[in-house]
Amino acid sequence: MLDLFRELFDKEELLSGRFGIEREALRINRDGKLAVTNHPEVFGDKLLNPYITTDFSESQVELITPALKTTKETYDFINALYDITALEIGDEYLWPQSMPCDIPEDEHIPIAKYSDCGECKKAREYREKLFKKYGGKKQLISGIHYNFSFDDILFKKLYAYQKPSMGYKLFKDSLYLKVVRNYLRYRWLLIYLTGAAPIIHSSYTKTCTKGLIPIKGDSFSNEGAISYRNGECGYKNHTDLFPDYASVESYVKSIEDFVKENTIQSHKELYTQIRPKAKDNKDLLNSITEDGIQYIEIRSIDINPFEKGGISLDDLDFIHIFMLYLLLKEETNYKEWQQDALFNQKLISKGGMENVCLIKDGEETTKREWALNILDEVKNMSEVLCLDRESLIEKMRQKVLDSKQTYAYQMAERAKEEGYLPAHIRLAKEYRQSAYHNRYKLEGYEHLELSTQILMKEAIKTGIQVEVLDPLDNFIALRKRDKVEYVKQATKTSKDSYITMLIMENKTVTKKVLEEHDVCVPKGIELSIKENIRTAALKYENTPIVVKPKSTNFGTGISIFPNGAPKEDIERALEIGFKHDNTVLIEEFAQGKEYRFLVIGDEVAGILHRVPANVEGDAIHTIAELVEAKNKDPLRGKGYKTPLEKIQLDTSSELFLKQKGMDFNTIPKALEIVYLRENSNISTGGDSIDYTDSIPSKFKQIAVKAAKAAGAKFCGVDMMLEDYKNEESSYSIIEINFNPAIHIHCFPYKGTERNIAQNVLKVLELI
Amino acid sequence: MLDLFRELFDKEELLSGRFGIEREALRINRDGKLAVTNHPEVFGDKLLNPYITTDFSESQVELITPALKTTKETYDFINALYDITALEIGDEYLWPQSMPCDIPEDEHIPIAKYSDCGECKKAREYREKLFKKYGGKKQLISGIHYNFSFDDILFKKLYAYQKPSMGYKLFKDSLYLKVVRNYLRYRWLLIYLTGAAPIIHSSYTKTCTKGLIPIKGDSFSNEGAISYRNGECGYKNHTDLFPDYASVESYVKSIEDFVKENTIQSHKELYTQIRPKAKDNKDLLNSITEDGIQYIEIRSIDINPFEKGGISLDDLDFIHIFMLYLLLKEETNYKEWQQDALFNQKLISKGGMENVCLIKDGEETTKREWALNILDEVKNMSEVLCLDRESLIEKMRQKVLDSKQTYAYQMAERAKEEGYLPAHIRLAKEYRQSAYHNRYKLEGYEHLELSTQILMKEAIKTGIQVEVLDPLDNFIALRKRDKVEYVKQATKTSKDSYITMLIMENKTVTKKVLEEHDVCVPKGIELSIKENIRTAALKYENTPIVVKPKSTNFGTGISIFPNGAPKEDIERALEIGFKHDNTVLIEEFAQGKEYRFLVIGDEVAGILHRVPANVEGDAIHTIAELVEAKNKDPLRGKGYKTPLEKIQLDTSSELFLKQKGMDFNTIPKALEIVYLRENSNISTGGDSIDYTDSIPSKFKQIAVKAAKAAGAKFCGVDMMLEDYKNEESSYSIIEINFNPAIHIHCFPYKGTERNIAQNVLKVLELI
Repeated sequence: MLDLFRELFDKEELLSGRFGIEREALRINRDGKLAVTNHPEVFGDKLLNPYITTDFSESQVELITPALKTTKETYDFINALYDITALEIGDEYLWPQSMPCDIPEDEHIPIAKYSDCGECKKAREYREKLFKKYGGKKQLISGIHYNFSFDDILFKKLYAYQKPSMGYKLFKDSLYLKVVRNYLRYRWLLIYLTGAAPIIHSSYTKTCTKGLIPIKGDSFSNEGAISYRNGECGYKNHTDLFPDYASVESYVKSIEDFVKENTIQSHKELYTQIRPKAKDNKDLLNSITEDGIQYIEIRSIDINPFEKGGISLDDLDFIHIFMLYLLLKEETNYKEWQQDALFNQKLISKGGMENVCLIKDGEETTKREWALNILDEVKNMSEVLCLDRESLIEKMRQKVLDSKQTYAYQMAERAKEEGYLPAHIRLAKEYRQSAYHNRYKLEGYEHLELSTQILMKEAIKTGIQVEVLDPLDNFIALRKRDKVEYVKQATKTSKDSYITMLIMENKTVTKKVLEEHDVCVPKGIELSIKENIRTAALKYENTPIVVKPKSTNFGTGISIFPNGAPKEDIERALEIGFKHDNTVLIEEFAQGKEYRFLVIGDEVAGILHRVPANVEGDAIHTIAELVEAKNKDPLRGKGYKTPLEKIQLDTSSELFLKQKGMDFNTIPKALEIVYLRENSNISTGGDSIDYTDSIPSKFKQIAVKAAKAAGAKFCGVDMMLEDYKNEESSYSIIEINFNPAIHIHCFPYKGTERNIAQNVLKVLELI
Repeated sequence: MLDLFRELFDKEELLSGRFGIEREALRINRDGKLAVTNHPEVFGDKLLNPYITTDFSESQVELITPALKTTKETYDFINALYDITALEIGDEYLWPQSMPCDIPEDEHIPIAKYSDCGECKKAREYREKLFKKYGGKKQLISGIHYNFSFDDILFKKLYAYQKPSMGYKLFKDSLYLKVVRNYLRYRWLLIYLTGAAPIIHSSYTKTCTKGLIPIKGDSFSNEGAISYRNGECGYKNHTDLFPDYASVESYVKSIEDFVKENTIQSHKELYTQIRPKAKDNKDLLNSITEDGIQYIEIRSIDINPFEKGGISLDDLDFIHIFMLYLLLKEETNYKEWQQDALFNQKLISKGGMENVCLIKDGEETTKREWALNILDEVKNMSEVLCLDRESLIEKMRQKVLDSKQTYAYQMAERAKEEGYLPAHIRLAKEYRQSAYHNRYKLEGYEHLELSTQILMKEAIKTGIQVEVLDPLDNFIALRKRDKVEYVKQATKTSKDSYITMLIMENKTVTKKVLEEHDVCVPKGIELSIKENIRTAALKYENTPIVVKPKSTNFGTGISIFPNGAPKEDIERALEIGFKHDNTVLIEEFAQGKEYRFLVIGDEVAGILHRVPANVEGDAIHTIAELVEAKNKDPLRGKGYKTPLEKIQLDTSSELFLKQKGMDFNTIPKALEIVYLRENSNISTGGDSIDYTDSIPSKFKQIAVKAAKAAGAKFCGVDMMLEDYKNEESSYSIIEINFNPAIHIHCFPYKGTERNIAQNVLKVLELI
């Protein structure tokens, strides 16, 4: 089989697949007690949000990634979901452990609440029945579900090569079932490697803590425990159930029998360590019979308390190649070892830290021997198939050789030192802090523009499905039920018309349209023929003017003469302008400061003023030191990955300071503001300052009027205001920008952070 | 005054103003008889179409230009209106003469018909009253009205300089009234220079032809006649009326008196040779009192039969500087010569061809002497003010010196030779032919793209107001009542959303969106990193593919390998692609031929197939000769000014022929099609062939479905079809173009010309 695979497939094919993670987490208060507040409304309808919902309890958040193409994407996505959730639960935290926190007695455990619809009622009733049958406390155990499918190319090529007599669907089912059976046999190893629940809190079911050693007063364990979740005290059926995994048919039959015998209510109540999954999992038995197995769900993995998202990238990767190993590994008759496998699971869960004796094909063997044997085979596979995963496998080998490297051991040590609750709360706080630091971005999507990341993040939060159609273009699709909205660069949408954008793009036309709607714009002339340069320059000599190319959008090619200029300079400015466009405008310089009014829909969502890179003196530090200190703000980064850019002390700022008789070593006076360059672009270290609440509504109305004149739902109206506080101040609209960034308003240097993405989603009628 | 003007103004200021022309024309049958058919419906509501309407009679078309900035624009516009009208009146022609054609007796002259609205009824009643009062025949006389205003800068500067005690409005009024008075005094000269109605047809009022000399049996004249329209038999009030032009107040008062005395119904019935005009001319007397004189209307100008539009550019220019002369010329008391001026007008009209004696300030003087005297003064003004109009003035001088150069003389000569009706019909036919040759363009707007010219032309036809906002961008505004639609490049409108255009612009996204809607697209891969080049090239070696940059729109950077290619060539093609975009697509080559489906709204407005430049052999001529012959098609031009481009015999076609063992001197066999290059671009002489009616509706539906998937109202769907006639043929959509040209469908090389502009206007809800 290994040789065949080597021949048939390349590394890329072998390693491609789909990965999805579900991760549960209890919400807790500051003191580690279960939070009995409601699931935050911002996440919308629990039954509709595909990313953030609840599981059994109202206090038990469930985070679900979509099926993604790589483990890295999945890893990032689950972390991003964590970030989003952690910042929406007020002063609560997410419990970073599979076994529960400090929980109340059953009558105080809140079952997940639903509204009154048919499906909602069913969801509630189902949970109530489970509550009665298993008790509330067990239901609070949380875990990782790892969903995985191989790339179809694997099965197809294999089918084409082997030409079996059975149909393709049955062939694929048989391979997935082989993986399932082998998984069941070897699951103990994964539990050993990923188990991280070696302690039970004293508030948990008393029968479980009985006979265990107390830890720091509030919790219990036994020597050698790896995962209470996967042991006797974990969440499992009352009777040990052994479905028939010989074929999909027999699998379905055995589940139907369990239900008939009333052992379980439905297939959903069969708490096996791995599940074959169907296209339509609500109607699993029919769907899996009809269309075959679509993917498998691994359910043995504990929450890794040392990972924000609950699972490490290494573990995601190892489980992935472990699946490949299970696909290749020859089987022995599973019926003979199915009970032994359960025995092994429980033994490892309760005492796996020691080199326990497991039962392998009826014979005893030590955990270490068997584990090393399996890992050697996995390593061999990796080598033969050129999977390049040897170092990862070596890490797992080390964990086998030294059980102190297990998560279980390390977590137990922390709990012994700090106490069960405090040790976990400390981690939860760290993760929450990390979520806050990440607030301006969407983990895993840092290759997109910040505005797009922010919009996607808000969409995910409210349960709108996001899909990146073209990352280079920041082109995404947002889906909610049957509705699809395509969005490019966060604000280019279906809500603006093509001509609206073209009006804004063309400064001549913009001015004509605004003038027609009685909106003030700077007066000026338009030059399309180079020959006019001289006359025009002469005409505007010593007049405060702005010279700008007609159609550029990023301030390039613009010259500003607030105090007028000699005609030679104007000629020069015109020449520069003509490098960017065939038409150049000369406009009267509008007095005052420039404010960016971000219009979204019919309202101004934010107003921003930009100031050039600067530092504020303290009479102690040099300019260079002040810059260094200012650059420590986590919102400042390099290369547009953060809302603000670090200030660069370059030649241009050196020259600028020199004109004022300063250099980088000058020590400015206390409270003295020293500017470091002329231009106020954020990209050169400028500051963004929010003025949304301080500018009179009159000017907001004018901005909206200007946007409406062009027909725009999304735009940045750049307005000059002589005195922003004064309603009577003169104004002039110098540009309407059809591609306004939103991130600068969301995360300004000074002032309120604004949830612009919400406004965008509202205008798109998605929320 | 002259010196003051020289000091205050530059040439540009002196020559700037607004110009508008109204031109009436009778519709005639092939035999020169008045056409009594209805005004064509295509021109819409007569009261709403600002460009093409009727005057007194249903058979009397009135063409009206907007107020334009230059005489040239006005000249072009009136010609364009002629072109539009001439092609919409079936086999009728436009009578190119002020005095009527062969007209019936009054009872058969159709008064302009209107629908039933209030304003419409008034319009009809007004005409009925005139009919009773003046008879139908006189009402059929047609002419030119020349509307003119000086640039306000002239009055403003003068006002600022002279600081008169009166207000600015009165000051401006006084200057306009000076022009009006001087005009009245010197109008005889303009009548002499532009008069062109020296003959009366026998069907005209008998009292007018009595005593005249018969010409070729069907018409009459007297020796020396210049303009019967401006003479006793022209259209004038029953009584000679002399309003008081001293001030606006007295002018208004005198008209009110005429009305009170029942001499005329309203100000509209005062048929003076010049009229001061108001902002709101319907309510002239109030409006002119309120806001002052806005412009003046010169009414002495005959239709120039030698000009399609009815007036020559020279005359437009001369009248313009003549206005300036009248503004500058010192006055004598007009009340003293007002009657003499009328005498002079009538004398010149009836006998101006001779050197008649006119009355100047009570003294007799010859036409020639006075005329030369005036022209010398005009010339002097031109020189002093550097207007650079001396050669134009010289032309007028020559006309004075030699009356054979007058239009009147020349027209009379033609009529004597060919007959009154045939001579005019011949001219009308010529103009109609010219209109047909111009059908693909809008005269005066040749600097715009053909698609935009065609759209504007159709808009003007139906009475939609057009305004060019930015010629470089082909950005126009279309207005109808309160509705404005902005359009760029004929198909970029408010009807498409911004994101729709962005979807179409991005080939990756287009494909994803089309696939999601079950529309067939070529399969392929997307390369964003240059490093992938080798692997990709290897993968697609010898496979029929197309390599194209993701976002370009004009076929640039595309390589096509219909029969596959070695990997080196594919690498080369990828490198070329990466020069145009960071992402390049490799797609399976779709078999068949490419068809452009132009989708407008919910339907396919045209289907076009392009073939490379080619000639069809006749076994006689060489390729070079065949190309020359083919290039004679008036639809072929150079530099995209025509729907098709001339075929160029360049090195590239030489090499192409060489590969087939031919050169430019080869004589192809009869009916042999010889292609001259590979690519089928129209820009390199390719042929466009209309297939709209030959392709099964199934494919049209697919094109519409594709457009709808992207949300597009205007787009070009490029579809590959193996066999265009066969419904079962496989298809593949290779691109959706968001900026489809319409002119290629309007004027294909072969096949039906399609009125695409009409579809565009319909989707814009303007018609």
